[in-house]
Amino acid sequence: MRIVCGLQPVREAIRAHAASLDRVLVEAAKDAPQLEALARYATDQGAKVERVTRGDLDRLSKGARHQGALALAPELRLQELADLTLDEKSLIVVLDELQDPQNFGAIIRSAVAMGATAIVWPEHRSAPLTPATFRASAGAVEHATLCRVGALSSALATLSAAGLTIVGLDMGADKTLDQIDLSGPVALVVGAEGKGLRKPIKASCTTLARLPMAGPLGSLNASVATAIGLYETLRQRA
Amino acid sequence: MRIVCGLQPVREAIRAHAASLDRVLVEAAKDAPQLEALARYATDQGAKVERVTRGDLDRLSKGARHQGALALAPELRLQELADLTLDEKSLIVVLDELQDPQNFGAIIRSAVAMGATAIVWPEHRSAPLTPATFRASAGAVEHATLCRVGALSSALATLSAAGLTIVGLDMGADKTLDQIDLSGPVALVVGAEGKGLRKPIKASCTTLARLPMAGPLGSLNASVATAIGLYETLRQRA
Repeated sequence: MRIVCGLQPVREAIRAHAASLDRVLVEAAKDAPQLEALARYATDQGAKVERVTRGDLDRLSKGARHQGALALAPELRLQELADLTLDEKSLIVVLDELQDPQNFGAIIRSAVAMGATAIVWPEHRSAPLTPATFRASAGAVEHATLCRVGALSSALATLSAAGLTIVGLDMGADKTLDQIDLSGPVALVVGAEGKGLRKPIKASCTTLARLPMAGPLGSLNASVATAIGLYETLRQRA
Repeated sequence: MRIVCGLQPVREAIRAHAASLDRVLVEAAKDAPQLEALARYATDQGAKVERVTRGDLDRLSKGARHQGALALAPELRLQELADLTLDEKSLIVVLDELQDPQNFGAIIRSAVAMGATAIVWPEHRSAPLTPATFRASAGAVEHATLCRVGALSSALATLSAAGLTIVGLDMGADKTLDQIDLSGPVALVVGAEGKGLRKPIKASCTTLARLPMAGPLGSLNASVATAIGLYETLRQRA
């Protein structure tokens, strides 16, 4: 059982899979219109709602910020790379050993909001999928297609063989991202905070591209760079 | 005196204004090549370096993550709107009652990295400039032109009178951002998390624009939306 904490994460859990939630727990509080609305929404969607005390929620959430709402949800189902449905509009986000759970969650949120097909990352030396990540995703994790793989280079080889252009975001690249044709199926590969892409991962890319910079800082936050990559893809495809 | 904590924030403080730092405090630790490099860099740039114990740093940083390094820096100097140098390439980020200090810091980082002229926000009902914001900016705050104003609508009127196109990011807008001409001087206006732009602020904009979305979520994180706005501006100007 997975514990989902906070108003927006619980709302998204209901929206994504109300029927498979074990229960939605809402604090029995006076003058809490947001909690009332959430309880009503959960009931309308067919989820089982239970009124509890703040103490119950504090205990179950183990210190995570719950805002009076919590859902008991099934474990997140990870997808196998081989099971992804790929087509000419595929847009895959690939994370090369991303370290920060906040960035991981923020990337999941942007990927879901901009309609990415899946998020792919390697099992080892990556930020794990933790409640901090779920929270940072603002509930987007409930809608995401998540794909944890063994070796990232072979995953990239598989995606390349399936016809995707593998675009590595790299500040040292000659071309800027808007000079790359992103209208076909694409995988955007983003490196770890402060480190960028590893050499073998760069070598697995069809092409490298940089984002335009214009100031005294050398890099963008990894989640910001990913979001810009997703935006540029949607812009070209519009 | 302002306390700057952490390797990257301290490095950026040295880079931005080594001469005006009171002191750089570095933990006297064995086998700490990053701290050694930082101390060397500080000395090279003419800052006064002092070796201290971890206990000293813990005490001075009041619980903030210091990573063995801390700088005593002058207070951040805020700029008056009237003193900004505006020209045909001006790119101003305007925040309409942004609430989250992390988002505030992340926006400062993106704004500096993409060469924004200034960041403007209203004094009341906004996230304050706190150490959490400085940290989230990864030191970018040291290079930023920060402009806190009284009333945001009159600030927008001033910018508009100075010839800037005031572009409000609004998910309900008819046009997408790439349909707006951003090649001239521009102010990008971003609303609060979950709330968007207030009505009077919308009314003060020359035009409203939305970002392309393609998934089950209704909105992007405010710092992500800002970064995409900055990217689109740079792309059009390249």
